[in-house]
Amino acid sequence: MAQAPGKLPGASELPGEFDLIARYFAPLSAGMPGALGLTDDACTYAPPPGYDLVLTVDAMVAGIHFLPDDPAASVARKLLRVNLSDLAAKGAMPVGYLMTTAFTAETDADWVAGFAAGLAADQREYGIGLMGGDTIATPGPLSLTLTALGIVPTGRALRRNGARPGDVVLVSGTIGDGALGLKVLRHEFLDLPPAERRFLEDRYHLPQPRLRLGQALLASNLVHAMMDVSDGLVGDLGHIAEASGVGAILEAAAVPLSAAAAGLLADAPDLLPLILTGGDDYELLLTAAPDAVNDLLALGAEIGTPLSVVGCIPGHAAGERPVRVIDRDGVELNLATGGYRHF
Amino acid sequence: MAQAPGKLPGASELPGEFDLIARYFAPLSAGMPGALGLTDDACTYAPPPGYDLVLTVDAMVAGIHFLPDDPAASVARKLLRVNLSDLAAKGAMPVGYLMTTAFTAETDADWVAGFAAGLAADQREYGIGLMGGDTIATPGPLSLTLTALGIVPTGRALRRNGARPGDVVLVSGTIGDGALGLKVLRHEFLDLPPAERRFLEDRYHLPQPRLRLGQALLASNLVHAMMDVSDGLVGDLGHIAEASGVGAILEAAAVPLSAAAAGLLADAPDLLPLILTGGDDYELLLTAAPDAVNDLLALGAEIGTPLSVVGCIPGHAAGERPVRVIDRDGVELNLATGGYRHF
Repeated sequence: MAQAPGKLPGASELPGEFDLIARYFAPLSAGMPGALGLTDDACTYAPPPGYDLVLTVDAMVAGIHFLPDDPAASVARKLLRVNLSDLAAKGAMPVGYLMTTAFTAETDADWVAGFAAGLAADQREYGIGLMGGDTIATPGPLSLTLTALGIVPTGRALRRNGARPGDVVLVSGTIGDGALGLKVLRHEFLDLPPAERRFLEDRYHLPQPRLRLGQALLASNLVHAMMDVSDGLVGDLGHIAEASGVGAILEAAAVPLSAAAAGLLADAPDLLPLILTGGDDYELLLTAAPDAVNDLLALGAEIGTPLSVVGCIPGHAAGERPVRVIDRDGVELNLATGGYRHF
Repeated sequence: MAQAPGKLPGASELPGEFDLIARYFAPLSAGMPGALGLTDDACTYAPPPGYDLVLTVDAMVAGIHFLPDDPAASVARKLLRVNLSDLAAKGAMPVGYLMTTAFTAETDADWVAGFAAGLAADQREYGIGLMGGDTIATPGPLSLTLTALGIVPTGRALRRNGARPGDVVLVSGTIGDGALGLKVLRHEFLDLPPAERRFLEDRYHLPQPRLRLGQALLASNLVHAMMDVSDGLVGDLGHIAEASGVGAILEAAAVPLSAAAAGLLADAPDLLPLILTGGDDYELLLTAAPDAVNDLLALGAEIGTPLSVVGCIPGHAAGERPVRVIDRDGVELNLATGGYRHF
């Protein structure tokens, strides 16, 4: 695109658009022949025979989805990983990504270099490459949009809408660390040991998309419904329940917690709603028949990402509230919020 | 994604995120089974056997790429069409798109309704559908990112890098209308007849992606290099020249102009640089062997989008300036700018 109704003052600190792409972004496309070195209008890709393409897009805005002083490399890796987590939830294998970067007059070359280094590190980790993108300037906060591509065997992508009455609900890893990590970054929980502070911060900055687990779960044929937990466990279980036309019960005491989260919760029980609804977990949430539980737990252990049973699907007819959260004694908890909404 | 370091004040004027998607965007996905009604983490798609997928992404920011008071429907259609123009340049057939919308506290439901109506109109026109996306809030200007998907026969996507010494350079339609249209919208050229003002405004607001022509050009096997003119004719011819390792000569007097543009240029010859470098043309720019010209001109006439010969590829070794622009007498013109850069 071309004509600019308003030019940006001061944006010249960065190299020009084409130099920026050539210097920082084109090297990230080296492994992707269809990216044409980012010198063309578009890129090409064909999934292998017998595979569907899976596409997902997520955007991040400075001050909303990340802290303005977060390290550039960590912003890059989170941007990539939240999208890879969506692919994991479909059971997909990641292939590559397209990215739009809207830089501000304050964005300098060091920031872009750090951002590109973060992408490069995660490309190596996940075996993917940059396929295309757009680089623009914005008078608003720095904004990033990433479209990730993956592949799944034809017609096999896992979905949210398959939960059945009688299913059990399972979740991977631990829940609440990301939301607690953001509080640590905001200088809360100052009594926490440094190692635990660091662990929680990392869980906020650096999601671990459960790609191997997602692919193994797809291959197991045992999963009825799956999604990743990004908006909060209760809210996302509600998404599965709504899409499947069922209700769900979440047993708060069964939700797996890290040692750091468990310690904080023991000291401050009022952290429970944050843990259950805060989001930024990027774990996999799934339902399956009760007789599949043993095999699923074994599968999680084998992959090294444990699965935990956290609830069940009692039946149809969800009633007013799709997800009921109960405590150890079966008493329903009244959580103030049912999950993050962007606005 | 979930945790918000900062919440937006006043953003409640819009329906909630999920209502917004359900009300305005989900209906746009009706024709795309892989979109899963926008109720899932991701969408799926497989190109037909024998086809590659073509992907392209373009972003637009209010105040930079469109005027803040542009009608919402026209912003939507331009966002879609600039991406479709990139697909046209590959010779691709459009399939669908993913979209990220970052709305502000001032964005109201009327704006979103108009925006969705514009998308719906163009979806019908181009036979495509919405496949997925992300809807977020931003404290900055309204920002939009669109990833378009198309298909081309395997390995056949047209590229920028095939121009050969001895080729002629052709362009479709007329050049300069978009850049002049923006000036009309800024209340310049007040003496111009209303019909011509309207024509130029439309050319700025509503690009005509040359999809049929692009596909016919691919099928003709006559094209060596192709791209769409978005950043300005001179700059974009420079992109072809650089990617192909050649130089290019553009004959200014041969560049096809609309009656409105020709009239303005006759009165004000100093508009020539704007016409040749202003961009927002969304025409196709291509090179081919001289003996293909007659067939190409006939093909353009048949499609109803005329092609014009505007220059040639003199040889290798581009020298300092990849594109030389010459006048009727062969004298080189010194244009101040070589094309729009985003910053």
